[in-house]
Amino acid sequence: MSEHSTLVTRAGALDAADELAGTRKQFVLDDVVYLDGNSLGALPAHVPGRVEDVVRRQWGELRIRSWDESGWWTAPERIGDRIAPLVGAAAGQIVVGDSTSVNVFKALVAAVRMAESEPTGSGRDEILVDATTFPTDGYIAESAARMTGRTLRPVVPAEVPGALSDRTAAVLLNHVDYRTGRLHDLPSLTAAVHAAGALAVWDLCHSAGALPVGLDEHGVDLAVGCTYKYLNGGPGSPAYLYVRRDLQDRFDSPLPGWNSHAEPFGMRTDFEPAAGAPRGRVGTPDILSMLALEAALEVWDGVPIEAVRAKSLALTDFFLECVAAYAPEGRVESVTPVAHAERGSQVALRCEDAGDVMKRLIERGVVGDFRHPDVLRFGFTPLYVGFADVERAARVLGEVLR
Amino acid sequence: MSEHSTLVTRAGALDAADELAGTRKQFVLDDVVYLDGNSLGALPAHVPGRVEDVVRRQWGELRIRSWDESGWWTAPERIGDRIAPLVGAAAGQIVVGDSTSVNVFKALVAAVRMAESEPTGSGRDEILVDATTFPTDGYIAESAARMTGRTLRPVVPAEVPGALSDRTAAVLLNHVDYRTGRLHDLPSLTAAVHAAGALAVWDLCHSAGALPVGLDEHGVDLAVGCTYKYLNGGPGSPAYLYVRRDLQDRFDSPLPGWNSHAEPFGMRTDFEPAAGAPRGRVGTPDILSMLALEAALEVWDGVPIEAVRAKSLALTDFFLECVAAYAPEGRVESVTPVAHAERGSQVALRCEDAGDVMKRLIERGVVGDFRHPDVLRFGFTPLYVGFADVERAARVLGEVLR
Repeated sequence: MSEHSTLVTRAGALDAADELAGTRKQFVLDDVVYLDGNSLGALPAHVPGRVEDVVRRQWGELRIRSWDESGWWTAPERIGDRIAPLVGAAAGQIVVGDSTSVNVFKALVAAVRMAESEPTGSGRDEILVDATTFPTDGYIAESAARMTGRTLRPVVPAEVPGALSDRTAAVLLNHVDYRTGRLHDLPSLTAAVHAAGALAVWDLCHSAGALPVGLDEHGVDLAVGCTYKYLNGGPGSPAYLYVRRDLQDRFDSPLPGWNSHAEPFGMRTDFEPAAGAPRGRVGTPDILSMLALEAALEVWDGVPIEAVRAKSLALTDFFLECVAAYAPEGRVESVTPVAHAERGSQVALRCEDAGDVMKRLIERGVVGDFRHPDVLRFGFTPLYVGFADVERAARVLGEVLR
Repeated sequence: MSEHSTLVTRAGALDAADELAGTRKQFVLDDVVYLDGNSLGALPAHVPGRVEDVVRRQWGELRIRSWDESGWWTAPERIGDRIAPLVGAAAGQIVVGDSTSVNVFKALVAAVRMAESEPTGSGRDEILVDATTFPTDGYIAESAARMTGRTLRPVVPAEVPGALSDRTAAVLLNHVDYRTGRLHDLPSLTAAVHAAGALAVWDLCHSAGALPVGLDEHGVDLAVGCTYKYLNGGPGSPAYLYVRRDLQDRFDSPLPGWNSHAEPFGMRTDFEPAAGAPRGRVGTPDILSMLALEAALEVWDGVPIEAVRAKSLALTDFFLECVAAYAPEGRVESVTPVAHAERGSQVALRCEDAGDVMKRLIERGVVGDFRHPDVLRFGFTPLYVGFADVERAARVLGEVLR
């Protein structure tokens, strides 16, 4: 048997044994192999009807009454509770709203203020930030540092333990590196940050919905994440903020909008922060995007995140194997770790002419994305990507690279 | 002729002469008199179809390609340019995104930084804020003051000129008071702020789409506003930020997300702010809410804001007249100024049992809202409210008050 037919056969067997194969039919997909769900998740098939109801009936007919009758007002916490089990959080600790960038600002400023209020807090004049972070986290961290009078120190995650000291107020880390797909060790890094008396803020954009996070289990202090990647919430769907329950009373937001007031309709001139997760809210929530997300999250009903993780690793393993078989020697090099414990749900291949190669891949029905300057990035969403897709993607890549 | 039949006849004549009567059919309305468009604008009839296209085709079929092909990436500035003529701004100065509260934070912190960078800036240690403001502006201003090391001083708008000094860095004012409907004198207050060497930040939530604002003409420095009231963008549709063109290069955002970078896809670790309006962006824009807003703004095609203002004043004049005729003596008292120059597009009636009265009005098909503790608030959206509606609303109010 040729290498090709062997891999096709393997793909068929893996698909046949896939316990998550059934979730694919819940999404709108065509004959494209969509490996860009880590940028924008595919559309769950029931979402358009739900959005239509929100627009036509809830807005068009009930209008202002929908703030109560359609549950608009409570959507940020309700949807937060729906995301919670996916990231290992008990209910009442996540609120949805605003962009990831805005939530990074809230979380990091609040973390610095929490550190400051500790007995040893006055000397904690540094914020550490992942030096390999998606840029927005770095820009916002710089602003948070400037506005709280701290110094920002970029450090690669592996060197964070050595960089921690009694000067560290807070540390902002990415669970999965957006470029390389490297999974960082959240439990041990969080423990190291705590041992130094500082607070750990995690960005879950590239891990939530792809692998277990265990926020509560590992004692994470604050976390943020977007919802349009593995959570399939739609373009620019609102982000979320996690504040661990025992820290909620100390969450001192830099963006205390009327939605985070204890009595939002009291129209009081003095600010009294709400208790619990609503304290992370700011202004009026963007209901259309938010309720599209709520509908999209229904595809997770009955799907254990552990099964998603197992399939994700099998998909990326198989992709690496197929690439090794199909790609001409030396044309691409994986920058994604081989060890499962260090791998997210994507494979990043370094390739000299990556921009051009990705264009040709897309023309041939294999959609990944290009990350400046030389990375081909392929994201694997276990809810709708199968093993035959993986074989085809690698095969087309091999052809394009020749 | 009875008073009632006289007013009904008058309403009929006013409706017959109304040059904006034709825009009503562009909205989804029922037999309710909807006087709450200053809280949530009614649904323009073509919006559901447009949202469906965004969800089904742009997200569902084109997926990630829509960032370019469907114009998602440029939506914040494109929609800003669509709002611009309604508030008297030339193109290239408004960007849409985030909530009003978040934009107040950006605008006020940036204004303080601009003031600080002036030769006389070091002594400018005060921020003045409208003491009668919608609460969120006050809460956010307090945070902006705290984070920039300034003192926040609440002052009623009429007393702002007397409170200005060489200690004033920036002033945050509301164009129309959310509770009383009082229209503040934007040109003269802005001039007074400038004469003191400070910057003027205006909140246009209750004026944009109801009356001419004249941002450019009056030299306003920065402005923010929501889009779900008189602009009918839908529940929680994104807000906007105006930065006057000659100040854009000095706009130093406290929320410098990747979307405000000069080269957002360069993934650079150093932050170089974009030129122009995009500098006011933060994170990924919420596309569903944003494109619903864009569609909603089409109802303004060919509608001069001056005609809207003329009809708005005629509607509120007529409402006050009908209330005087129908309401039992002494049961309600208008807190909205009689002078046109001081009136927005709403009428606020003080009424001891306002909460209960509004409940009964709504049961009888007249929808306004209740503002704690004793205000009945009626908003008049000239695009879809007519004079017969006004007569009916006042008549039902009179019956309920008896």
